[in-house]
Amino acid sequence: RINSDRLWDSIMEMAKIGPGIAGGNNRQTVTDEDGEGRHLFKRWCDAAGLEMGVDEMGTMFARREGTDPSLPPVYVGSHLDTQPTGGKYDGVLGVLGGLEIVRSLNDLGIKTKHPIVVTNWTNEEGARFAPAMMASGVFAGVLDQADVYEHTDKNGKKFGEELERIGWKGTEKVGDRKIHAFFELHIEQGPILEDEDIDIGVVTHGQGLKWLQVTLTGKEAHTGSTPMPKRRNAGLGMARVIELAHEIAMDYQPDAVGAVGHMEAYPNSRNIIAGRTVFTIDIRSPEKEVLDAMDARVREGIDTICEALDIQYKVEQVGHFDPVTFDAGCVKAIRDAADRLGYTHRNIVSGAGHDACWINRVAPTAMVMCPCVDGLSHNEAEEITKEWASAGADVLFHAVVETAVI
Amino acid sequence: RINSDRLWDSIMEMAKIGPGIAGGNNRQTVTDEDGEGRHLFKRWCDAAGLEMGVDEMGTMFARREGTDPSLPPVYVGSHLDTQPTGGKYDGVLGVLGGLEIVRSLNDLGIKTKHPIVVTNWTNEEGARFAPAMMASGVFAGVLDQADVYEHTDKNGKKFGEELERIGWKGTEKVGDRKIHAFFELHIEQGPILEDEDIDIGVVTHGQGLKWLQVTLTGKEAHTGSTPMPKRRNAGLGMARVIELAHEIAMDYQPDAVGAVGHMEAYPNSRNIIAGRTVFTIDIRSPEKEVLDAMDARVREGIDTICEALDIQYKVEQVGHFDPVTFDAGCVKAIRDAADRLGYTHRNIVSGAGHDACWINRVAPTAMVMCPCVDGLSHNEAEEITKEWASAGADVLFHAVVETAVI
Ligand SMILES: NC(=O)NCCC(=O)O
Ligand SMILES: NC(=O)NCCC(=O)O
Repeated sequence: RINSDRLWDSIMEMAKIGPGIAGGNNRQTVTDEDGEGRHLFKRWCDAAGLEMGVDEMGTMFARREGTDPSLPPVYVGSHLDTQPTGGKYDGVLGVLGGLEIVRSLNDLGIKTKHPIVVTNWTNEEGARFAPAMMASGVFAGVLDQADVYEHTDKNGKKFGEELERIGWKGTEKVGDRKIHAFFELHIEQGPILEDEDIDIGVVTHGQGLKWLQVTLTGKEAHTGSTPMPKRRNAGLGMARVIELAHEIAMDYQPDAVGAVGHMEAYPNSRNIIAGRTVFTIDIRSPEKEVLDAMDARVREGIDTICEALDIQYKVEQVGHFDPVTFDAGCVKAIRDAADRLGYTHRNIVSGAGHDACWINRVAPTAMVMCPCVDGLSHNEAEEITKEWASAGADVLFHAVVETAVI
Repeated sequence: RINSDRLWDSIMEMAKIGPGIAGGNNRQTVTDEDGEGRHLFKRWCDAAGLEMGVDEMGTMFARREGTDPSLPPVYVGSHLDTQPTGGKYDGVLGVLGGLEIVRSLNDLGIKTKHPIVVTNWTNEEGARFAPAMMASGVFAGVLDQADVYEHTDKNGKKFGEELERIGWKGTEKVGDRKIHAFFELHIEQGPILEDEDIDIGVVTHGQGLKWLQVTLTGKEAHTGSTPMPKRRNAGLGMARVIELAHEIAMDYQPDAVGAVGHMEAYPNSRNIIAGRTVFTIDIRSPEKEVLDAMDARVREGIDTICEALDIQYKVEQVGHFDPVTFDAGCVKAIRDAADRLGYTHRNIVSGAGHDACWINRVAPTAMVMCPCVDGLSHNEAEEITKEWASAGADVLFHAVVETAVI
């Protein structure tokens, strides 16, 4: 079993970097805080005798040599970046859980045949720069590196330039590594495991997602002196599309979710009818047919809404992945590990996207989940217990070591 | 008649300060640009032989002495501040129209018994700091000076401190001046005069307004992994309240308008259900009973919406004025002037709020309106013709001079 105190202490130490305002974290990707978190992780990796590689997307690969260095490594990890108002565990548990495996192997003097590589994927959250799971998406060949370098944040800063600025743009070509298997430990971010009092979620599938960024163009005008029939109100249009996305998700739930979390009105003045709004619809389903049907209904609905309000629209897909089925062998390794260790477990579908979803396209992949309090995530109040964390890391430990072969 | 070329040139000169991005202006109150605009206005007033007074709210009073200095002055003016994406005429026409009257009197060597004071009221727009018509509201004793000094903009800057920073916090106590009458020239900001091809709007009434700032508090959570029934979505709540405000206004129109132009979601991330939204409902009617009924329906509707979504709400009134009936004598002076000059005219209700609405509570007041293209205002594309401007300024000239007595 892993050393649960050490794992917990490391999580708490990492949480000191980029503290939030309500007990969580604001350590968004390729900010100074992200850079600082990376340095801390690197110091820990150095101390554990790992060799660090960094690729052109800034992803960190900390390698523990295997007894047969020619074998492809087993990868384990997640991400250290957070939402602007994120929790201490989302992503961090998976990276530091990977580090803890290596530390435990060192403690026990165990060598594995395959090397083990602890990984910190860049920009998993997609909060500052869309899309989410950016670096793993480039690694898997789904996203284009030159293209995502040009993606801008709200202040117009480019991803590629910011990565360079914080000093973590590596030289290694992205996607060149051979991966024997990839394992990711993550908090559930939903309520199922806690509600059912189950230690471990064996993640068999991941639901698919679309992010549709919508720009509505009406006409700026005075809120007081413009007669109601003369208005071309892009704010009202946004309100109707937010409701539409919700209604469509409600029609398909529990096999779907949908919401708008990002929304901007211009010029955003109390007495100006919004001439332009920009917002992102997030729709998800574990069923590809459902996801596609939702996408079609959303687009159709936007057209109807905009026609009624005499406003123009543009819909851009800024994020997308189809539902994922994880590798049967890796899933079995996790289930077996949980059984062997005596933890209660159940199969589960990941509601969130994860780097594992992309890596699954290029290597056998699976995920371990542990409960989180009240299913709450993407909230500074995100919480887990030390016991949940260590049960998850134990299962990860056994699955990784079994796959890397002693 | 006034010198219409000189008036137009001055307007164009002022428009160079704080240019917008689409041909209009961004000269928001108590910014550096506002300070620069004030200096230009002061230079012009100095050149016209006027004596400048500045009160503690930063309102500028440029006095042309009367033959009987003991008589209370006739005031004429409007505001030089603009919306973030404002036009070149909203407010500016009224201030520079007032200056043009004085310049014309100087040209003609005419002296009036009553002094004439050209006025630039601070923060009429209310865009950067709520409420609108702030300085005239303090002058009229409706708003509290110490209170509005503390009002903050989106960056947390205080109105009082910003006024001091730009160097335009005067020493004169606010509201101490005796006003014989106040006249304000303004563009209509609505489509009626242009549609009916009429030169002059004789403003008999102003519609009342309420600004209700709403804060909704739900719970930040993951857009992907949070089941639909577990959501407490403050973004969806905002969308429903925006629709509500629109529906209520539609029910009462043409005797009412309503919209939400200001809206913010927190933390505003694509994959976080908004935990908090803040937005301002703007409802207006020329009928007090309608305005009050709308207010009640809005509050009731918010309660219902929030209960259904399990979110909390707070409603704060950040702006309010009841419908206004302007002074019969001043209104007659304007109508008579239009008749005498041979301009077509009609009675009109102001859809927007104006400094005249507050000053009407402490002195006989009325307004002159001229058409604007397509009724468009609070838009950089706001446009008027030189002829419309000079007709309005002519009527203002005659009404002011008649009231100030030669
Ligand atoms: N795990 C996680 O929160 N990932 C962010 C991408 C998503 O929105 O699902
Ligand atoms: N005239 C004008 O645009 N005033 C701003 C206050 C309002 O919103 O009516």
